[in-house]
Amino acid sequence: MAYVRVNRAANELRPISITPNFLPHADGSVLICCGNTKVICTATIDESVPSFLRDKGQGWVTAEYGMLPASTASRMRREAAAGKQSGRTQEIQRLIGRSLRAAVDMKKLGERQILIDCDVIQADGGTRTASITGAFVALKLAIQKLLNNQTLPETPLLGSVAAVSVGIVDGVALLDLDYPEDSGCDSDVNIVMLNGEKIIEIQGTAEGAPFDLDELQTLIALAQKGIRELNEYQEKAVQ
Amino acid sequence: MAYVRVNRAANELRPISITPNFLPHADGSVLICCGNTKVICTATIDESVPSFLRDKGQGWVTAEYGMLPASTASRMRREAAAGKQSGRTQEIQRLIGRSLRAAVDMKKLGERQILIDCDVIQADGGTRTASITGAFVALKLAIQKLLNNQTLPETPLLGSVAAVSVGIVDGVALLDLDYPEDSGCDSDVNIVMLNGEKIIEIQGTAEGAPFDLDELQTLIALAQKGIRELNEYQEKAVQ
Amino acid sequence: MAYVRVNRAANELRPISITPNFLPHADGSVLICCGNTKVICTATIDESVPSFLRDKGQGWVTAEYGMLPASTASRMRREAAAGKQSGRTQEIQRLIGRSLRAAVDMKKLGERQILIDCDVIQADGGTRTASITGAFVALKLAIQKLLNNQTLPETPLLGSVAAVSVGIVDGVALLDLDYPEDSGCDSDVNIVMLNGEKIIEIQGTAEGAPFDLDELQTLIALAQKGIRELNEYQEKAVQ
Amino acid sequence: MAYVRVNRAANELRPISITPNFLPHADGSVLICCGNTKVICTATIDESVPSFLRDKGQGWVTAEYGMLPASTASRMRREAAAGKQSGRTQEIQRLIGRSLRAAVDMKKLGERQILIDCDVIQADGGTRTASITGAFVALKLAIQKLLNNQTLPETPLLGSVAAVSVGIVDGVALLDLDYPEDSGCDSDVNIVMLNGEKIIEIQGTAEGAPFDLDELQTLIALAQKGIRELNEYQEKAVQ
Amino acid sequence: MAYVRVNRAANELRPISITPNFLPHADGSVLICCGNTKVICTATIDESVPSFLRDKGQGWVTAEYGMLPASTASRMRREAAAGKQSGRTQEIQRLIGRSLRAAVDMKKLGERQILIDCDVIQADGGTRTASITGAFVALKLAIQKLLNNQTLPETPLLGSVAAVSVGIVDGVALLDLDYPEDSGCDSDVNIVMLNGEKIIEIQGTAEGAPFDLDELQTLIALAQKGIRELNEYQEKAVQ
Amino acid sequence: MAYVRVNRAANELRPISITPNFLPHADGSVLICCGNTKVICTATIDESVPSFLRDKGQGWVTAEYGMLPASTASRMRREAAAGKQSGRTQEIQRLIGRSLRAAVDMKKLGERQILIDCDVIQADGGTRTASITGAFVALKLAIQKLLNNQTLPETPLLGSVAAVSVGIVDGVALLDLDYPEDSGCDSDVNIVMLNGEKIIEIQGTAEGAPFDLDELQTLIALAQKGIRELNEYQEKAVQ
Repeated sequence: MAYVRVNRAANELRPISITPNFLPHADGSVLICCGNTKVICTATIDESVPSFLRDKGQGWVTAEYGMLPASTASRMRREAAAGKQSGRTQEIQRLIGRSLRAAVDMKKLGERQILIDCDVIQADGGTRTASITGAFVALKLAIQKLLNNQTLPETPLLGSVAAVSVGIVDGVALLDLDYPEDSGCDSDVNIVMLNGEKIIEIQGTAEGAPFDLDELQTLIALAQKGIRELNEYQEKAVQ
Repeated sequence: MAYVRVNRAANELRPISITPNFLPHADGSVLICCGNTKVICTATIDESVPSFLRDKGQGWVTAEYGMLPASTASRMRREAAAGKQSGRTQEIQRLIGRSLRAAVDMKKLGERQILIDCDVIQADGGTRTASITGAFVALKLAIQKLLNNQTLPETPLLGSVAAVSVGIVDGVALLDLDYPEDSGCDSDVNIVMLNGEKIIEIQGTAEGAPFDLDELQTLIALAQKGIRELNEYQEKAVQ
Repeated sequence: MAYVRVNRAANELRPISITPNFLPHADGSVLICCGNTKVICTATIDESVPSFLRDKGQGWVTAEYGMLPASTASRMRREAAAGKQSGRTQEIQRLIGRSLRAAVDMKKLGERQILIDCDVIQADGGTRTASITGAFVALKLAIQKLLNNQTLPETPLLGSVAAVSVGIVDGVALLDLDYPEDSGCDSDVNIVMLNGEKIIEIQGTAEGAPFDLDELQTLIALAQKGIRELNEYQEKAVQ
Repeated sequence: MAYVRVNRAANELRPISITPNFLPHADGSVLICCGNTKVICTATIDESVPSFLRDKGQGWVTAEYGMLPASTASRMRREAAAGKQSGRTQEIQRLIGRSLRAAVDMKKLGERQILIDCDVIQADGGTRTASITGAFVALKLAIQKLLNNQTLPETPLLGSVAAVSVGIVDGVALLDLDYPEDSGCDSDVNIVMLNGEKIIEIQGTAEGAPFDLDELQTLIALAQKGIRELNEYQEKAVQ
Repeated sequence: MAYVRVNRAANELRPISITPNFLPHADGSVLICCGNTKVICTATIDESVPSFLRDKGQGWVTAEYGMLPASTASRMRREAAAGKQSGRTQEIQRLIGRSLRAAVDMKKLGERQILIDCDVIQADGGTRTASITGAFVALKLAIQKLLNNQTLPETPLLGSVAAVSVGIVDGVALLDLDYPEDSGCDSDVNIVMLNGEKIIEIQGTAEGAPFDLDELQTLIALAQKGIRELNEYQEKAVQ
Repeated sequence: MAYVRVNRAANELRPISITPNFLPHADGSVLICCGNTKVICTATIDESVPSFLRDKGQGWVTAEYGMLPASTASRMRREAAAGKQSGRTQEIQRLIGRSLRAAVDMKKLGERQILIDCDVIQADGGTRTASITGAFVALKLAIQKLLNNQTLPETPLLGSVAAVSVGIVDGVALLDLDYPEDSGCDSDVNIVMLNGEKIIEIQGTAEGAPFDLDELQTLIALAQKGIRELNEYQEKAVQ
């Protein structure tokens, strides 16, 4: 029997809100809510670069990710207390960093680094894609600050970056999975796009049931629809 | 020249708000704001006890503390990435745990543990005292849940716990220091009280200028005033 | 100007060899060589399961990955000496584990665990896909051992798993990238398939130039061709 | 029934001895014995400062603390083997450092650092206060060396620092608690004073029974009496 | 020009003292002084065995080693603060453990473990051999306690263990090297003997100048002389 | 009853092979097989020195050692996953480093470092001695490279280094122990020699039965015979 969503269509995003300038200390910050998933994303400008980039005339963007212990249904162990970040955490923060770097001209950014922090306050599926979508807005706010105070003469941004998850649950292709859908799905794909047109990252996993090429195409089209809507929310948040 | 506060009296708390049930997954949770200091406090009920208490017929309360990297004016290093909690973090979480345990009858709590998490979203001085004041409300909400579902027949709470910082800045005794006051002060004292009457913890530090006994008495009286007001905010939050 | 490969066609695998039973102590083992990339893959049967699976009547497959310090052109730091596995290492070993689990019926495996080790002796691009392709053969050899000694009545394997990388270099879609191609490419995709038909994992990254959907389809078709050839090498190795 | 001490009055220190120059390699060193609590305290002059103080024309004093595994009644785990210092250890070494810094004019010390090590050989309560009292003597000996060899023209010391614990056991206020008294007490307070007159640090903890302001005053007066006696032992040790 | 010792003959030990029962909490303890090298050695009886020996009807002896930061001429980093034990520390504690185990009948010891701690208070060469010689006395005292309280019916000790270093400095064979001799020597050998007759451990290192077989024989004979004298000091200490 | 070897004489080495230039990326490399013990040894030239040697006009040689998890009969835990190197690993890599340094004139090497990696692919006893024997060949190949490209005018090598283990099993002195012999032996000695003549390192351990001086002499003579044969294999490998 096919899965039927109760409160929204299969191709519908959860309610989205992006609150800009959420944390006053950061150079750029947002609170992004995708349904019950809530992430604080900040961007901090650092007027130095990692040692491997020193004196190369270019900048860098990197990201860190964390979850509050009580953000999940059963409390997670605090990574700082455990003494290390889990493999999942490292995987996600590497993904966020790569996704944002794909939209930045590092020469135009100049020899400085932008540090992104994504901290999940409440988790209900899709924390990595919400982090990317929110982090891009924080990044853009930080870059506007550099433009406003004339540190940068022109924007290093090559376009806008947003991400969403899609998956197949009981044979139905769904946009923007929440946690129960994500746990129960046969396969899910996280897609990051530039300007809602080109793929920056695609990560598909099918522990449940491998998918064929047709299914993949359907999912990508669904993701593209969602990402274009997310781009509009991002646009509004930075105005 | 004596220090003069701009927007509030020397013996006045910053604006306080305590939002109960802030995170739906936790058994008890609040967002506490003391001026620009904002802390999410949660309480999670764990139906087991640490090994040193096994089969002793009593419970335990313990706490963890963390700060978002962008909560401070200049970004802090993420402790999970650094691979360990700082000495300051450990000191604060031990303080929170001891403060709350002083108000709980562990026999009445039974063989279960309540885990407190205090996560600072925004820091402007007094994060440890805000954490204690907020954590007590989260703890009380978790215990109400145990009472409501009849896991506990009677409350194990012995009273209410709240905390505030006081200090001397340029010769003036101040209640509830914000970050600039805290940085510039000669000496500051964090005080935790039970029912606004008895001292559970007092931690006074005077790297700047040691204080004499009279000054200490003045500060304690000031703290008591503030704590009694905080008790009222706590009371409202749990109703 | 389009990129032209010197010694092989754009849609041709590097020379492949899979030497079974390479390490006598392991329950299953191979040395897999994909051009100059050489990986020792072993499978060890462990008659216990991780604690989260205890008493659930099912098994588990998990993987670890490492590189000899001198396997790369400039010596890498030894992770054991550094005191931790890099984010890249953790990401790869999680990928290997998920990929293999997608081809195993955990109920039929019974309450035991198969531990996969992939150790890169020499690296020239594609170490993660060579690891998956080799690890599947080691896994199959270990399972044959369980079938031969009648610990298992029937195979828990659902099909064969192999992986390959594909990418676009200067506008040309290439199968099975070596290290110089991988470093220079605009975008690369690692694809893991079950029986050369369905996608288990797809991981596409485009730090250089994002790709569109048509390019992605071309790359997937190229990967499928390569994976089907790898399946034949795997088949021979286990006979 | 009120607690009665067997071998000393309620307001009496344990037998104190301070042996100067106990370790020949250190710039300053003592063995301090407070009853059965024995601590080796050393001061090492380091002609550099931590990076946050570089080129600021001032010095620093910092401290580390440790316990021999067999110093306690039941052997403690060795922290070096465990791979980290406990929260308690970090709290104590931070307290020792702050206490000593309060008595040093950092400008007069010049751009150098004095490293304090406090290693507990035998523990019977009051190890942190014995460490502070002994460490001050080691610090003073190291500074005398700097004065004697004319590295410093005048002493940077602002006075003398000593510390003692006080507490209430079964309603009786006691000076200088030993381990059984400390374990059984309702509340205990560690007090550090400058010249036996002003409070540098006060740390009161009441997991057992919170104390009121009158009790706190009684305890502080008791501590002051003990600290003044400790100052005399310190004075003799440096002559 | 041949090296000439000032205050003692080439074949003479430094002044030795062994103070038994130095730490009251341990089951066995000594302070051993070999010239200016001073080590506290303790033995703690633990009525359990490591997991690899569980239910095998035999006991175990293991050792840990540490140095106070100020024990050496220039202060060493505290290993607990560094977060790990150095390779040298681990090598020495493994040597101490093996040396003592060679003199214990593990069946007669029964299912219990004796934990040895060797903590160097002051270092002037030969800390590992002084640790072994002192630790054997601490072990013997702990075993006497087990015999006295009739936990053990007969001694599990197979003889006495002592150790000394020997080396060649400028062509002269020397017994019991102090730190300047050890630093300047061409080659040095640490020898552990059972009853001053048979070799338990021999560790010879010649970074300076490799030695031939005749030199090795001379050194071993010299060590044997020293060890037999050390056995007498050990004997006196336990009476 | 005396132990009798099946396939080789008591004073016979296992079959030895040394394959030079085994890994193309390293400056020097071999695969050494001593019976079923197989180790990859590499030498990497690093044009810098550790900080303690900076600006002293001399070089350094250092070594790291590791084992593949599946190299042993029952799988070992991966040290990188465990987060630290075991005491045994550190002891062995320190031994390899010291042994090689004894044969190098550090002034002639100049301000550069040679990093040795020894990775055990398959273990059947004697991995540390095989590592030393193989590492010397890798080191020599790296130095030949420095001579060939005229970075060095003359060789800094003082001779050749090889190592072997010897031991007494049931009263019989054996050369080159395999794993069953090593586990069952009363005492074993690892010997490293320069030019098959002088002893660089001797490490004898007798947890089973201590040995007397005559036995030690017999064992050293046996080792010398083996080491001279190993020198011939080394010589052939570098031609």
